[in-house]
Amino acid sequence: MRPDGTLRIDVERSILQSADEAAAAIRALLSERKIYAINLISSPGSGKTTLIEALLARFDGKAGVAVVEGDIETEIDAERIRKHGVQVRQINTRSSCHIQPSRLLSVLREMDLSETRLLLVENVGNLVCPAEVSLGEDARIVLLSVTEGDEKPLKYPLVFRTSDLLVITKTDLLPYVTFDVDRVRRAARAANPSVEIFEVSATTGAGMSALLDRIEGLRAMKH
Amino acid sequence: MRPDGTLRIDVERSILQSADEAAAAIRALLSERKIYAINLISSPGSGKTTLIEALLARFDGKAGVAVVEGDIETEIDAERIRKHGVQVRQINTRSSCHIQPSRLLSVLREMDLSETRLLLVENVGNLVCPAEVSLGEDARIVLLSVTEGDEKPLKYPLVFRTSDLLVITKTDLLPYVTFDVDRVRRAARAANPSVEIFEVSATTGAGMSALLDRIEGLRAMKH
Repeated sequence: MRPDGTLRIDVERSILQSADEAAAAIRALLSERKIYAINLISSPGSGKTTLIEALLARFDGKAGVAVVEGDIETEIDAERIRKHGVQVRQINTRSSCHIQPSRLLSVLREMDLSETRLLLVENVGNLVCPAEVSLGEDARIVLLSVTEGDEKPLKYPLVFRTSDLLVITKTDLLPYVTFDVDRVRRAARAANPSVEIFEVSATTGAGMSALLDRIEGLRAMKH
Repeated sequence: MRPDGTLRIDVERSILQSADEAAAAIRALLSERKIYAINLISSPGSGKTTLIEALLARFDGKAGVAVVEGDIETEIDAERIRKHGVQVRQINTRSSCHIQPSRLLSVLREMDLSETRLLLVENVGNLVCPAEVSLGEDARIVLLSVTEGDEKPLKYPLVFRTSDLLVITKTDLLPYVTFDVDRVRRAARAANPSVEIFEVSATTGAGMSALLDRIEGLRAMKH
């Protein structure tokens, strides 16, 4: 290809259109089955799988929750979740830095969702590409651990702009790191005035029940 | 585009070829000017900018070091580095999750590299896409902080397979997190038997001088 850009742009637009179509199909599937879907996005190691585990512990009827784990490689996260007795599928994206809506759609069509009320999708650990692609979710949650640095909402504005909830994780480590929670709150609100912000520590449990209450409230509002 | 895949593959191959050509041009430029270049890759907040600051503090002749900062948005890192009195350029990649070799080449051609002996390139915070693209560097360093989780070399094998050095950062936080250093060492060695592994804490300074010695040794070996 001659690098004049035109062809590249056309192809990217086609791929995005097809991604949008797959996202719309997911949205229709979820709506028909009255399933509330959450797309969890963060850097590697910010606590997505841990939050999912906390949500599973909270929900009584395990049959009501289904989980899809996205990773470049390995079944590590799916195995971790499977121990909780819920339905879980792993998507290995290989060279792709986010879950493709078409892959998620295929997986959802294979799953038994007859009892499912809440679908938790853990995206690939990455603050960039997953933010660009809708998976047809009802809510998007971005997690930021206090060890990652408080300038991240400025550096990765898209994911903060497009998320409904910001969860600041690992707050038990605040005494040992330099992290200005107020700076993050201000920057996140500047990017997205309607974002709801929670501070949690999975280690101590601090803030966790307020977050779980809110997620359950959002789910119950839909159905 | 009909989603038969063929066109997509051809286009991607062209883009990669052009990236390879740009990387080769960078390599030629570096070789001609006897500059040793390091490409730093990690998740957001693992300590890339902090390691660059430690390297700057170590090098006496500030004119000998040049820095290129890659971020989706903002000049935060470039401003932080500029305070050290070295030549620094910021590349804002916008929607791209890694520094494009062609962008780096353009920036290097604009810089005054007549005194430069060491070029430090901080890639966009991401363990996925930057691993797929050579910037013509002499050495690639992947950083992993102990707060990110010890399964990361299994989940993101490419960046560990293609890096010359693995730097485990924030070791001062080991008492407060669950992180098995030996598990990381084993997985990293399995992905890449020749990887050299360092454990450092920028907060306490532990391990830092061994790492800086090694980087200076690598640089001196080339020229």
